[in-house]
Amino acid sequence: MTDLTHLNAQGEAQMVDIAGKLATSRTAVAQAEVSMLPSIVSTLSQLPKGDALACARIAGIMAAKKTAELIPLCHPLLLSKIDIQFELDATLGKVLIRALCKVEGSTGVEMEALTAVSVAALTLHDMAKAADPAIEINKIHLIEKIGGKSGHWIRTESSGK
Amino acid sequence: MTDLTHLNAQGEAQMVDIAGKLATSRTAVAQAEVSMLPSIVSTLSQLPKGDALACARIAGIMAAKKTAELIPLCHPLLLSKIDIQFELDATLGKVLIRALCKVEGSTGVEMEALTAVSVAALTLHDMAKAADPAIEINKIHLIEKIGGKSGHWIRTESSGK
Amino acid sequence: MTDLTHLNAQGEAQMVDIAGKLATSRTAVAQAEVSMLPSIVSTLSQLPKGDALACARIAGIMAAKKTAELIPLCHPLLLSKIDIQFELDATLGKVLIRALCKVEGSTGVEMEALTAVSVAALTLHDMAKAADPAIEINKIHLIEKIGGKSGHWIRTESSGK
Amino acid sequence: MTDLTHLNAQGEAQMVDIAGKLATSRTAVAQAEVSMLPSIVSTLSQLPKGDALACARIAGIMAAKKTAELIPLCHPLLLSKIDIQFELDATLGKVLIRALCKVEGSTGVEMEALTAVSVAALTLHDMAKAADPAIEINKIHLIEKIGGKSGHWIRTESSGK
Amino acid sequence: MTDLTHLNAQGEAQMVDIAGKLATSRTAVAQAEVSMLPSIVSTLSQLPKGDALACARIAGIMAAKKTAELIPLCHPLLLSKIDIQFELDATLGKVLIRALCKVEGSTGVEMEALTAVSVAALTLHDMAKAADPAIEINKIHLIEKIGGKSGHWIRTESSGK
Amino acid sequence: MTDLTHLNAQGEAQMVDIAGKLATSRTAVAQAEVSMLPSIVSTLSQLPKGDALACARIAGIMAAKKTAELIPLCHPLLLSKIDIQFELDATLGKVLIRALCKVEGSTGVEMEALTAVSVAALTLHDMAKAADPAIEINKIHLIEKIGGKSGHWIRTESSGK
Repeated sequence: MTDLTHLNAQGEAQMVDIAGKLATSRTAVAQAEVSMLPSIVSTLSQLPKGDALACARIAGIMAAKKTAELIPLCHPLLLSKIDIQFELDATLGKVLIRALCKVEGSTGVEMEALTAVSVAALTLHDMAKAADPAIEINKIHLIEKIGGKSGHWIRTESSGK
Repeated sequence: MTDLTHLNAQGEAQMVDIAGKLATSRTAVAQAEVSMLPSIVSTLSQLPKGDALACARIAGIMAAKKTAELIPLCHPLLLSKIDIQFELDATLGKVLIRALCKVEGSTGVEMEALTAVSVAALTLHDMAKAADPAIEINKIHLIEKIGGKSGHWIRTESSGK
Repeated sequence: MTDLTHLNAQGEAQMVDIAGKLATSRTAVAQAEVSMLPSIVSTLSQLPKGDALACARIAGIMAAKKTAELIPLCHPLLLSKIDIQFELDATLGKVLIRALCKVEGSTGVEMEALTAVSVAALTLHDMAKAADPAIEINKIHLIEKIGGKSGHWIRTESSGK
Repeated sequence: MTDLTHLNAQGEAQMVDIAGKLATSRTAVAQAEVSMLPSIVSTLSQLPKGDALACARIAGIMAAKKTAELIPLCHPLLLSKIDIQFELDATLGKVLIRALCKVEGSTGVEMEALTAVSVAALTLHDMAKAADPAIEINKIHLIEKIGGKSGHWIRTESSGK
Repeated sequence: MTDLTHLNAQGEAQMVDIAGKLATSRTAVAQAEVSMLPSIVSTLSQLPKGDALACARIAGIMAAKKTAELIPLCHPLLLSKIDIQFELDATLGKVLIRALCKVEGSTGVEMEALTAVSVAALTLHDMAKAADPAIEINKIHLIEKIGGKSGHWIRTESSGK
Repeated sequence: MTDLTHLNAQGEAQMVDIAGKLATSRTAVAQAEVSMLPSIVSTLSQLPKGDALACARIAGIMAAKKTAELIPLCHPLLLSKIDIQFELDATLGKVLIRALCKVEGSTGVEMEALTAVSVAALTLHDMAKAADPAIEINKIHLIEKIGGKSGHWIRTESSGK
């Protein structure tokens, strides 16, 4: 049970005490990948106005600020920066989403970055689902995190294997 | 641009008019798959109390009710049922999450089911991230939807290919 | 386990299916009682402006609308009426709070009325706590409910004994 | 009117200025007691999975984070810890709920702890109301608070009399 | 006091009963006008990507869905359509915002349309305030409403005089 | 594009990094003016209980705390004070609303003060709209701001011209 810090010795959920933790600058970068029909990705990349990607970006930014409201045991925190980028591959029919979150605080921002990419991905799914109900979201994971006791962590090829 | 119903002819985002759509019984089933160290999945399946999975289940249920608050162009709706199930595979280090949502209404519940599995998956990620920062969420997609103009849709092997 | 309708046969939480339930007019009345120093109740009843009770009333009304966001397994619903009344007893040092909620729908509004009186009571507690940290809230219960399969239920002297 | 710090000299509600207050470590412990049919408490204590109490615990934790959204004049704050415990008495038909909240900040966490126990109690009420509509919640009060100008306060037998 | 339907005979706030009201199709159109330095309006109209206006549009759409959470005595309702349009006048330094909301229900959508334009205007203010702190929002009013007991109302030159 | 700090060099929305900004005491004062039939303003000023203005005041205070949830690119912050005042002019049929917000932090509270007056104004509109559908909200602007890099700014006659 020592693996799961959010459960106490009796296996009960708790929001762990971060009062004693170091208040430092913390950054996290996460990604998600949305697979859809290549023709939809083409459409997304050729739209005269940017509302489709802008909509997903705004949704991701607003969701990052709601992380502690969505994930029961997350601590509320004051995000100092949120940035979301999209990379479109119309050949493969893929949209890659990357989010970077920062905070000066006693706890990390991994969940905020992961929530941002997840909700941005769901928003793209919503906008394209009438054209392709089989859309799939994959590879939601952390790419990098900086700050806190565990220092600088970068995902490698062998991570998660 | 006809592909993307949530954009008008000028490419601007809009919440489309569902006033004329059929008010029927609608159901959607979605899934997500969380990959983590097999030892964590073992721990999850052996806990004397169910708080870990219960926490993810409650988070998913509450998120489904927040879908229209998270996804900018989703219509608010009155979910009549939400059910979330977990399947643990300690050998492969995987947790499969399935959510079923129902509504009597003029619009589908696909996004509600997808939001439920996504937030349940993020909650498991949060609880296990101290033990494994490389956790990955994959295969978030619809499995089935019933009701509305498009009738009964079931994902097949070739969907999304 | 048949007692607890919000758990399935495996003891897992679920938001139960109300699709088949009768859509009728439903009403619920609930109460809460706040005990505080008699001098504070005197102050509350003599204020030239009504901001103190108005604040608690507004808080209760807004909380009723948030019930499905607070209570995990509650269904979202469209309240058609919320009314909150206060009765002050400066001799005993008590404020009695009553809330009435109505809906036309497939599920009852008991939790909405109970949430309204609870949050109105907490708001009075908040405003008076600097003067009396020992404030206590008691007797939060349903007084009456109308509509639905169980018909008209009225709390009696022997209820809850 | 000096009793009610949340009203200004004109009796109008305000969110008081805490800018000048001491930023220290603050803790509050609160309780609530839910009375229901003894048979339901028996069921709760014998369930193979912990979803019923886990659901109430998660609801309480999430509500504590929403306190400033529910209580109009509460300041937003960054809770550093939330812990909720249940004590079941199947003979008397009672569930005792205790919540502990902590913050490093300029204002106390009494309302957060009180909101946590209240919403946890309402959640138990929701899950058991089909079996017993006469459930009652009592004795919602502070047990102890530490930190801030008023120092260490502990509820005694004579508190609130 | 008969003027103010949201207060009862004692002058107390209440969410009025709409159970007996006609469930019809209702539409409301509202506007707001934002005045800022002409150079900023020029910039807004020449941006290669539409993120600035898209951001204000999404904010307005999401705010319309939050109306009952923001305005204490508003009834929750299920919006069936939200559309927001901008008209830029770089000569006068003005952005005109128009929102149309629709619902099938027992109460009007005036406040939803007014909330949409207000929050869209505030979002433009936020994005441009570093360049012009003197931005002003004016002429927030209803243009037209259709449906319900009062039928079709159109604002005229003499309205509000 | 240098005018619009909330867009990056590509014109994409972002929540800008405030990690490096000075954490100081910041204050902002904003106003809004609601025009309605003089007879309604008379009613508001003669009500025996203060629920009408109290309701608008509470709505404004609660909205200020929701600013970062409403305005997509606003940073979350911990408001230390919110105060809202009304000035009624029954001859001209006007209600002037003023809000003051304070924070100790790295970013200003202009949007919080502007959101407070806007939602307070919308709440008055909601309560009086049955008597006067032509109500108009005007002159929403900053009056003064203190703190941060730009120092002390006061609106003058020529501001916004």
